[in-house]
This record gives sequence, structure tokens and C-alpha cells, in this order.
Amino acid sequence: MTNATEKIHCPEHRTEELMTAKTYIKGTLFPIEVGMTTLKLSKSYTCKGQEFSSFPLYDTSGPYSDPSVTIDPEVGLPPIRDTWAFPERESVPSTFSGAATTIPSRAPRKAREGSGITQLFFARKGIITPEMEYVAIRENQQLEGWISSFSRGGATATPITPEFVRNEIAEGRAIIPANINHPELEPMIIGRKFRVKINSNIGNSALGSSIQEEVEKAIWSCRWGADTVMDLSTGKDIHKTREWILRNSPVPIGTVPIYQALEKAGGQAENLTWELYRDTLIEQAEQGVDYFTIHAGILQEHLPFAEKRLTGIVSRGGSIMAKWCKFHKQENFLYTRFEDICQILQAYDIAVSLGDALRPGSILDANDEAQFGELKVLGELTKVAWKQDVQVMIEGPGHVALHMIEENMQKQLEYCHEAPFYTLGPLTTDIAAGYDHINSAIGGALIASYGCSMLCYVTPKEHLGLPDRNDVREGVIAHKVAAHAADLAKGNPVAWLRDELMSRARYSFAWEDQFNLSLDPEKTRAVHSESMALSGHTEKNPDFCTMCGPDFCSMKKMRSIES
Amino acid sequence: MTNATEKIHCPEHRTEELMTAKTYIKGTLFPIEVGMTTLKLSKSYTCKGQEFSSFPLYDTSGPYSDPSVTIDPEVGLPPIRDTWAFPERESVPSTFSGAATTIPSRAPRKAREGSGITQLFFARKGIITPEMEYVAIRENQQLEGWISSFSRGGATATPITPEFVRNEIAEGRAIIPANINHPELEPMIIGRKFRVKINSNIGNSALGSSIQEEVEKAIWSCRWGADTVMDLSTGKDIHKTREWILRNSPVPIGTVPIYQALEKAGGQAENLTWELYRDTLIEQAEQGVDYFTIHAGILQEHLPFAEKRLTGIVSRGGSIMAKWCKFHKQENFLYTRFEDICQILQAYDIAVSLGDALRPGSILDANDEAQFGELKVLGELTKVAWKQDVQVMIEGPGHVALHMIEENMQKQLEYCHEAPFYTLGPLTTDIAAGYDHINSAIGGALIASYGCSMLCYVTPKEHLGLPDRNDVREGVIAHKVAAHAADLAKGNPVAWLRDELMSRARYSFAWEDQFNLSLDPEKTRAVHSESMALSGHTEKNPDFCTMCGPDFCSMKKMRSIES
Repeated sequence: MTNATEKIHCPEHRTEELMTAKTYIKGTLFPIEVGMTTLKLSKSYTCKGQEFSSFPLYDTSGPYSDPSVTIDPEVGLPPIRDTWAFPERESVPSTFSGAATTIPSRAPRKAREGSGITQLFFARKGIITPEMEYVAIRENQQLEGWISSFSRGGATATPITPEFVRNEIAEGRAIIPANINHPELEPMIIGRKFRVKINSNIGNSALGSSIQEEVEKAIWSCRWGADTVMDLSTGKDIHKTREWILRNSPVPIGTVPIYQALEKAGGQAENLTWELYRDTLIEQAEQGVDYFTIHAGILQEHLPFAEKRLTGIVSRGGSIMAKWCKFHKQENFLYTRFEDICQILQAYDIAVSLGDALRPGSILDANDEAQFGELKVLGELTKVAWKQDVQVMIEGPGHVALHMIEENMQKQLEYCHEAPFYTLGPLTTDIAAGYDHINSAIGGALIASYGCSMLCYVTPKEHLGLPDRNDVREGVIAHKVAAHAADLAKGNPVAWLRDELMSRARYSFAWEDQFNLSLDPEKTRAVHSESMALSGHTEKNPDFCTMCGPDFCSMKKMRSIES
Repeated sequence: MTNATEKIHCPEHRTEELMTAKTYIKGTLFPIEVGMTTLKLSKSYTCKGQEFSSFPLYDTSGPYSDPSVTIDPEVGLPPIRDTWAFPERESVPSTFSGAATTIPSRAPRKAREGSGITQLFFARKGIITPEMEYVAIRENQQLEGWISSFSRGGATATPITPEFVRNEIAEGRAIIPANINHPELEPMIIGRKFRVKINSNIGNSALGSSIQEEVEKAIWSCRWGADTVMDLSTGKDIHKTREWILRNSPVPIGTVPIYQALEKAGGQAENLTWELYRDTLIEQAEQGVDYFTIHAGILQEHLPFAEKRLTGIVSRGGSIMAKWCKFHKQENFLYTRFEDICQILQAYDIAVSLGDALRPGSILDANDEAQFGELKVLGELTKVAWKQDVQVMIEGPGHVALHMIEENMQKQLEYCHEAPFYTLGPLTTDIAAGYDHINSAIGGALIASYGCSMLCYVTPKEHLGLPDRNDVREGVIAHKVAAHAADLAKGNPVAWLRDELMSRARYSFAWEDQFNLSLDPEKTRAVHSESMALSGHTEKNPDFCTMCGPDFCSMKKMRSIES
């Protein structure tokens, strides 16, 4: 395992061999600069009369892919959001005395008393924020001309405007998770009218992994395309680990605060209290966590249903709260205190990700009373959060057979008033251990094509152990495939262009462009050159591949017919 | 790469550590013995009132998983079908002088003049064959009691009977590819009312791989669960390679005879003739090939549509025939001679897999006039083949975006009169090179859930190079996941039982049962023990995994609540 510090100082992301350049697009409303990685193609391709000799990639790797930026992990990334003039966001110092950190960061802030600061607050007032303009530019990928000319199956498209973003947020259909204490963040949007996003999890469970490894894993998954990262750490140094990750993360960071609260309660669910949980929320809020998973929807009335199940409760947070309720014979305090929770969240603009404590842990438990009973409660809570201008997304299953996936999406839209859906998988079978990233990509592609906004990745280690570097990469790419497949199904013009360029490159044997347009240029390049070498071929740009060999290449034959 | 001979003599399939026993179930109509691998569970599980302390696996590895069988690859597997009394199948020596082989096999046979011998012939006459009884027993997996009691969402099930099999074949909805010259075969059935099957490809393209490697690859993919194997060899020693593979293969072998015909024509498509192709068919028929892919549906009228495409023709066989048509300005001889072809096929009971020469090679080309135009012709040819009692399946795409997959299945059923569909993927995006096995599993799971009967695997090397051992394993398992997910979606009772047992094992921390019930016990066992070791744990049966650690295991918590 490489040392994180070394890694950070030596960015190996998409540089020379990949023919890329880091570019920044300036905003027109705000002094923002949206980073992209522009891929130079080896030649020009004509798609619907438009010429493309480059392709700007949606880039989640932040400053790490900019060779001109030197990053000191002990200082963190540049706090870009602090330079975005937006006086409407009125904040004051936040004075909760959190644990000391090793990273000198600016003092935490929170909303001035009585002053709204969330994206939802501004959206509802009709005000466009810098973050809204940022995500609009980002989603368009500098391809406004292409987007405007796009049509497939009668459907046309228009570039995304800051006003469109504002309206989606105002309606609750999209969120921008962006804590005001995470100034290093490059904002992104989660909602079903935007590019499908993926989340990767990191976290030192009690059994492995160090802080440096966790920071490196966070950066590592952004390199491969993770749009957000959840820090699920449960071991010691939890505060410090999170601080390191936040200060060095260009993507939103999510957490499940009950994990840290449980550590504070000595690992005993029954010892959890509202006060302890509240203080944990504030501690993390001040550090800059962008969204919290909160299992507020699991109620006492659901427990008998869960106990009838084959696999009971498989959500960690859910099982903690179930244990608390059982012991105290009281209602889930995350539910009874939900208004208080929202009051904290709105002061930092933290989005809530309403946890599905009762997601099915096996195919047999899918779509049952426990699951849909909780989903209805999540719908109620959505309205409570919205009342306080807190941005909301809803977490979803879990293990669900293919034919039962669509019902999940339909019910979520109906019960939760179109708040964005964020699912783990679904896994379409229970028996794919060792290959659950594939299992999850199958279900994930399908539910995202129906409208799920973000997919939580699953790695090949799911159900078996803690993922390592390579598992993270495999998990991220598997879900990038799923998310991209869903973008195509939903008619995203930018997604269609990338596939068209890839296929034009393929048909003209432009190998470098094929590598660079693929989701994992490093792997495709390596696999191809290894196959060529193994078979004794030395051509630099062969007009065949070793799968069929030079005499049986259909594309080569077809081109000879056409010419 | 291990030596094939050594491998065959030293079967490492599912033995001791896996707690399995090879069992044989006798037929009641015929003296057949259906091999299965019975998995002994570490304890007894109760599912709907029935006790299971073992689970019989559908086993594609044939005698290789029977420790009592010694196999000499130079002799081949025992010719089990020769011992199945079925005098209705009247055959005589077939006397085409094929190239000499190194394996002493019995003399090839063919149907007595004027006598029908195909499964379809007998099915239509109301006659049950030994192969029909064999597949009925095989599909039920000794779980008749469970199947009869099964119901999900109002749907009930009944065990599969030989008569049910006969009827599906008679209606053209299913096929048993089983050349009378492949006596080593363990029959299997392809049809949408049966378990979804998968095919793996092997083949020494001109650029790599040896005969021994190919035989070993064939056996290797059966080990992981491939139901059929296509030998796509195009290099030298093509006849000998195929002979080795057939004599050592317990699964049906498919080929694309035009590849060998092209070699005979000196690699020049324009030099192909009907006579040369016909002789190749007979040569392969006598060797025992069970199904032929024949690109008889691509016609001159389709070529202008193909030339308008982004990626033209990406089928190897299709591009050969397109080149022939263009050069000779004549109609595809596979189409004009299709009745003659069927006359050969029916004499050996070879199934025809009508090739989709015009499958889309890019998302942009999916579901176009070229593709669906050819599909209509495949429907016509289906009727031609059925007239001669030849069993038919239809090959399908290719690259198709998620939302366009269902139309493929609907049109195939409509145009091709419900003949079984056999698809490559579909791949749901063009940009997943290096991860195309996942891409294909996504599309494959979906189309199989709609009724596709067999999925052709795709490996991580697709579009990049020739797959090696590990690619084959990854490709096979990815598609096993997809096929199983589809079986669940279709309500297959045996598939549901396996998932239930897996989840019961998971919820009770019965790790050995979890490993053994997974699709790749070797991998799951290795991953789990490596994760435990890395984290310093030594428990033999831990009640947690290293993903969450002992304190955060939701299942452990849930069990403590329940008890």
C-alpha cells in the first residue's frame, strides 16, 4: 500500500500518456472556475455534422489531475468556495469545541441566527447560488452546441442552465450536498434529470486500514470517477481520519453519524442518547461533512415485520436503532427529534440522506411491509426536512430480484415526493459473493434507468471482507458502467456523444482514442499491449485486435467493402 | 498455462473442501444416469417447512467432477449416449472422408436415408427420447418436492416432465443440441421455460493459443458453469483441435463452419463456394458438432442499410458473407442453399443457430433496419428448418442501450415464432472496454429476464484481445450471475431455493455453506480467509466479517434482539 502523502504529491491522474489537459471554465454569474479534463483525440471525428478533436470529461478528481497544483495533505486542498462572492450566505463562527485536528483549517462557521443558507432556501427564494452555476457548467461539459442539436427517438435536449438547476432544487427533485465548512469542495448535483452519480464507501472498520490509507482510498476512488465518498469509519481516530479526508477531498463527503455516536456510547446501543448524538452531528457539521445518513424512518411498529424476515435488519445503523428502541421501549429518537436534527443541518447546509434501515438483506425479503412501511415514513420526514429548507435524498435497497426493481422506484417517487433516490445496488441475487460488484451493477443500471439518481458502489468483497485498493477500483468502474448505461437509456446527449466517439475510434482502429475514451484507460491500454506482445505483434496502430486476428477482423473486412 | 493432459488427469473440481459428492440419478424411461454434484451443507436449514441438509447443483463439469473417473484425453470421455437404448434412432455409417484425427473414435454415423432422427422429429411424433428424459431430470435437480410446493406472487410451479420437454421441443420453443456423433455429451436444453443457459467461446485466433490450451479452456469454462462451448478456432490444426475438444467435452459444442471454409478458400471470401462449405459442414457433422452458427439471414438488400451504419458489420461470419455477395453480385449462398443445409443438419441432428450477421456493433446502430430486417429473414428460415425437423435457435445482439433491449425480445418472439433466443450481451454501452463482461452481464440479465434462453459470455478482454484462463473464469461467472438473476426474475423455484439457503447460511454465519453455495466457492473462501488473516483474526467460524468488524455487524445485533 503506497503512502498517502507520497501519492498526493505525485499525481498520476490522466496526464501525458492520456493526452489530457486540465481546463477551467469560468462562470458568468460568479467568479467560479469549473475544472474538467479535456481529452485530446488523435484526429477529428464528425458526429452529426459537428467536428470533435477533443472531448471534455466530467472530472471528479479535482486538483489531483492538475499537474500545476502542488498539494500538501497536511494543509489540504485550496478552499476554492471561499473565493466565490456570495454575500447572501450569512454565517458566523460555530463554537462547538470539537476534538483537536492535525490540519490547520479555518474556523468552522454556521448560519447567522434566523438566516437561511441552504441551497434549498435560496432556490425557493428564486436565488441562484455559485454552486448552482457550477453544477450547470459541469453537467454540460462544454458541449452546449452538441446538446442543443441532439435528438434520439423524437426526444430533444437543451443545455442545463443555472435556472434549471435552481428549479430542480426548489422542487426537491435534486440536491447539491455542500456544507459551508467544506470549502475545498467542487459542487455536484444529485437528481434524476442530471447525470447518474455514484458513491464509494471508505472506512476503517475496527479490523484494518490506517488513516493514510483511508485518505488515499478516498482520492483513489475519485480518480476512477466516484462522485461522492462516504466515510464509514468505525475504528479509533475517527475524528482525525475524517478531518484528513475532508481537507483533501474535492467531492462531497457523507457519513453515518450514529457510528461515531455509538463509539462514544462505548459500543452499547442502549447507552445512546439524543445529547450524545446531537453533539456528534455538530462536531461533524463543523468539520464539513456534506451529507448525513440518518436512520430516522425505522419505528417500533416496523420491528415485528423485520423479525419475521429471513435476514432481519442488515443496515448497521438500523440494527443499532432497533436495539435502542427494544431496550428502552421507546420510539426511535432520530424520528422523535427529527425537527431538532434538521435545525442543525440547515445551519451548515448539510443534506440528509434518509437511511433505509429496513432494506432487504435477501431476495426473499424484498418489497415487504417492513421495507415499504419505512419508505412511507421517509416520505413524511422528507416534508419535515423541506419545511426547514434542508435538502433531502432517500436511500434504497438492497437485495431485490430484477422484476421487483421497478416497483421500488415507483413507490419511492410516490411516497417521497420525487426527492432523489440513492440506492445500494440493488443486488439481484444472494449468491454472487466475490462478484457482488457485478450483481450490483446489474440492478443499479436498471434502477438508475428508471430514475434513481445515485448508485452506492459495491465491491467484489461485499459480504466477505474489507475492500482494498483494487476492490475499490473494480467497484467504482463497475458502477460507472451501470451509471453510464442508465444515462444512455435516459437519453443524456453527452453520454451518447462519448459512445459515438468511442465507436468511431473503434471502427477506424484509433487505439489511443479508444483507450482514452474508455472508463479505465490505464487498464485498456495495458490489456491491449499485453495481448499484442504475447502474440508477437509489434504494430503500433494495428488494424485488428488479437481477439479475431488480422484475417478475421469484421471491421477490417467491412471497411474494405465500403472503400 | 497448465498442460491440458495433466489437468484432465488431475480433476480439481468441487471435491473435498467443497463437501460435495458426485451423484447419479437414474431415469425411469431409459437407462440414463444424470450426473449432479450434491453439496453437503454443514447443518440443516428449514425452508417453508422442508428440511435441507444438502443441495444438488446443476453440474456442467461432467465426469471431470467425478473423482472415481479417470480420463485419458487421448481416448476421450466415456460415450455414455451409446448405452441409451433408443432403437427408433436409425443410423448408418457416414462416409465422408474427413481429415485424420489423433483420437481413436468410433466411426461417424448419420440418419438412415428417409428416417428422421432429430429431437424435433421425435417430439412431433409424440415420442420421448432419452435426451428429453435426461434434461427433465437435470432441470429439476432432485427438488421435485420443493418445486411442487413453490409459489411466489401467486405463481405456482410444477416439476418438469419428459412430456413437458417433448412438447416444448415440438412447438419449437426449446432445443436439445445433441449430434448423434457426440456420444460423450450430457444433454441440456435451451428454451425460455427452462433454466437460463450460458455459452463460453474458445478458439485459437491466428495470434495465440495451442490445442492443449483450447481443450483445457473448454474444460475450464465447464468447471465454472458454461452450459455450451463454441469453438471459434480460426488458426491451423482446426480439425484436430475440434476433435480433441469434442471427445473431451460433456457439453454441446457449437461452431461457425464458415470460418473453416474460409481457411480452405485461402482466406479469400470471394473464393468461397457452396461445395466447399457443404463439405465443411459434413466434416464437422461427422466429428460431432452439436450446433452450427449459420449467417443465412444477411441478404444483398440489407447491405445498403449496413453501410449507412456507424460500425457497419461486426459479425465475422457476416462480414465474410457480405464480401462474398458484393464480389459475386449474388445472393448469400447460405440463404439460397438453406434447404440443402438443413438436409445435412437433420441427418446428424445438428441444431442451427441462425447467426445475426447484422447485430449492432455500437449503441447508435441498435434496433435499426439492418438488424430487424435480418431478424425477419431469420424468422422465415426458422420455418424452412422446422419443415425438415431441424432444431433452431436465433442469435441476437450485440450493442443495445438498456431501454431498447425489451423491443429486441418482443420482435424476436414475434418474427421467429418463439424459437429460443441466444444473445451476446447485449452490451449496454460502447465505452466499457476492459469491463465488458460487466457491461454484457447488465444487458444479458435484462434480456434473459424477458425470455432470452441463452447468453453468450463476454470476457474482460472483449474489444481488446484474446481471453486467457482468468478472463474465461471472470466471463463465465459474470454471466452466471446474470443468468441466475434472470431465473429468479422468472420465478424458477430451484433458483429461489439456492438464494434462500445462501441467505439462511449468511444470517447464521455458516461460512462454509456460504462459500459452497456461491457461484465461485474457491474465490469466496480465499477472499474471506485472506481478509481475516490480514486483520489478525483467527476464528474458524466468526460471527462477523471484516467489512463491518465484530462490533458493527448488523446481523449479529439483530440476532441478539431476536433471541
